[in-house]
Amino acid sequence: MSVSSPGSQAEAHPRRRAALRELVGAADLDALLVTDLRNIRYLTGFTGSNAALLLHAGGEQDTVFCTDGRYTTQAASEVPDLTTVVDRASARALAATVGGDRCRYGRVGFESQYVSVEQAADLDEVTGESELRRSPGLVERLREVKDEVEIDALRRACAAADRAWASLLAVGGVRPGRTERDVARDLEARMLDEGSEAAAFPSIVAAGAHSAIPHHRPTDAVLRMGDLVKADFGATVDGYHSDMTRTVVLGEPAEWQKEIHDLVRAAQEAGVAAAVPGADTAEVDATSRRVIADAGRGAEFLHGLGHGVGLEVHEAPSLATTAAGTLAAGMAVTVEPGVYLAGRGGVRIEDTLVVRESAPEVLTLSTKELVVV
Amino acid sequence: MSVSSPGSQAEAHPRRRAALRELVGAADLDALLVTDLRNIRYLTGFTGSNAALLLHAGGEQDTVFCTDGRYTTQAASEVPDLTTVVDRASARALAATVGGDRCRYGRVGFESQYVSVEQAADLDEVTGESELRRSPGLVERLREVKDEVEIDALRRACAAADRAWASLLAVGGVRPGRTERDVARDLEARMLDEGSEAAAFPSIVAAGAHSAIPHHRPTDAVLRMGDLVKADFGATVDGYHSDMTRTVVLGEPAEWQKEIHDLVRAAQEAGVAAAVPGADTAEVDATSRRVIADAGRGAEFLHGLGHGVGLEVHEAPSLATTAAGTLAAGMAVTVEPGVYLAGRGGVRIEDTLVVRESAPEVLTLSTKELVVV
Repeated sequence: MSVSSPGSQAEAHPRRRAALRELVGAADLDALLVTDLRNIRYLTGFTGSNAALLLHAGGEQDTVFCTDGRYTTQAASEVPDLTTVVDRASARALAATVGGDRCRYGRVGFESQYVSVEQAADLDEVTGESELRRSPGLVERLREVKDEVEIDALRRACAAADRAWASLLAVGGVRPGRTERDVARDLEARMLDEGSEAAAFPSIVAAGAHSAIPHHRPTDAVLRMGDLVKADFGATVDGYHSDMTRTVVLGEPAEWQKEIHDLVRAAQEAGVAAAVPGADTAEVDATSRRVIADAGRGAEFLHGLGHGVGLEVHEAPSLATTAAGTLAAGMAVTVEPGVYLAGRGGVRIEDTLVVRESAPEVLTLSTKELVVV
Repeated sequence: MSVSSPGSQAEAHPRRRAALRELVGAADLDALLVTDLRNIRYLTGFTGSNAALLLHAGGEQDTVFCTDGRYTTQAASEVPDLTTVVDRASARALAATVGGDRCRYGRVGFESQYVSVEQAADLDEVTGESELRRSPGLVERLREVKDEVEIDALRRACAAADRAWASLLAVGGVRPGRTERDVARDLEARMLDEGSEAAAFPSIVAAGAHSAIPHHRPTDAVLRMGDLVKADFGATVDGYHSDMTRTVVLGEPAEWQKEIHDLVRAAQEAGVAAAVPGADTAEVDATSRRVIADAGRGAEFLHGLGHGVGLEVHEAPSLATTAAGTLAAGMAVTVEPGVYLAGRGGVRIEDTLVVRESAPEVLTLSTKELVVV
């Protein structure tokens, strides 16, 4: 498949900061103090563990980045395009400039959904005349719609997970006699081999009756012939996460196993098809859920349909019964219905996809047929 | 070595809650709303991902635990001894009881060092007449001094790391031709084999000139004959972390390598010996640092001497030039001096130890001789 060039990271960061300036101005703020490290990475490319960004609505020239002395070299390389201040107390150092002589920052927002009450009190001490205003979620609003640089990272993360899953199955890595923990460790090692920076989250491998527990942690339970084995796992590339689930069967499937796998697959494909620009997020959930409910198994699908995925494994938007919102082109979400028969076994099938104008672009490409291993 | 029985977890949690009640009463509070999951684990044994605890100063009968429906079974098993409420918005649900009819909670503290400004505003909405008061660090103050149940977990985490390191060296896992990343992955896999729940933190493996970078991330750089190889790693057992560093040499060591290894070892042993009850934390740092400074290498020891370790890898107390505080029996700290020669190589040696009345109990027991591999 030919994919158009996603553009460079170097172009992406100033473009994202420009988009954020629009939101900051519309929120009647002069500047936004960004302290969440994922948001800082999104806006600047910086990957270290201590930083803050004071984004001025007026433009790049008044926007200041801060990190500590450990990261001087790294910041020069990752954030070459912003004025950089070096200070261990990065948020406080930038907040202090707000109250300085050249105070052009009367109304400064801060990320009140992350900043603790103690940190806020500490910042308030140094801002002088300027008042810090609660401004939760401005960067997150931008992050809901991915640009092509981000989608490229998601695509590579999904491809790494796909390759790891294929190689695990190819060598018979899911087989009777192994423990859930063995399989999970093997799968995570293969994702690293395939270019993942780290597991996106602790992998779920659930065999037999355990597969009926939606978020089971791998144990020393041994896989046995006849088991459904559910694996929910993801890779990380450039900080972006993939998330997929497949359920296989050890040996010839029983009728009930085929039945619920077929049902979940149909519901999953209905959910994927419904993920189009303009769709109501609760309605996408309902479209998939209806397939399962119509088969009389609505009570056995216990959780929401999916969630946004990006720099966080779980982020906006949510696809759920209680969700409110509308999908837009460029959003990346999971679609992951399941049917769980307590004490017997369960099936979940999950893809990560990007909402597109034409049709959803599914990024996790492993087969959704019932694989017999 | 014979070690007295650490007592059971079941006894530990009520004992810790009783100790916290003393602090809550002394802070002139009727109750403390605990929302940090590590603090909740410390006080109740609960290991799930959503919970809150309203600890009443009056006693166990008015103390209430809350988690959501996913954890009903787990909470019944892990927290059998407290009244449990089931609600997804756990902190809010408990805050709401504060303002109820049977309001015995006039002054309720909350963990303002963790609770965000938005969360605090949300809680304030439901507390009615009661005022939530900023009460940072009460549980952390208790956690600085470990009980024997905690020390037993730390001891097992340190032993798992020791065994993993020994087995890595025994099979020639640190050898020319492997990459830093290979060695780090191998070491982390061996810690899992030895009973670790997860790596305590991303392992550092740094070879050759990279060993002079205190917190180097493993790369695809290949280990070569003549390199110093520094490995900083830890295991996790029952949620408690170990932290150790050893530096080995590939082939016969050069004079300068022996010199700085001997120097760091002497400094490290001086630091360990100084970690006694009543010692000033800055003075412990100074005692170790003086050994390196007296050899004319003070400028090449760039960081603090150590830190507390427990449910967090880095917690109070800090052993550093700027630290303030006094060691007490039962505190668990690292002692980790280093000497780093930019462009050539560096040595760090780190143990995790427990401060004891008699002499420090070192929990990481791998040799501190310069190992030639």
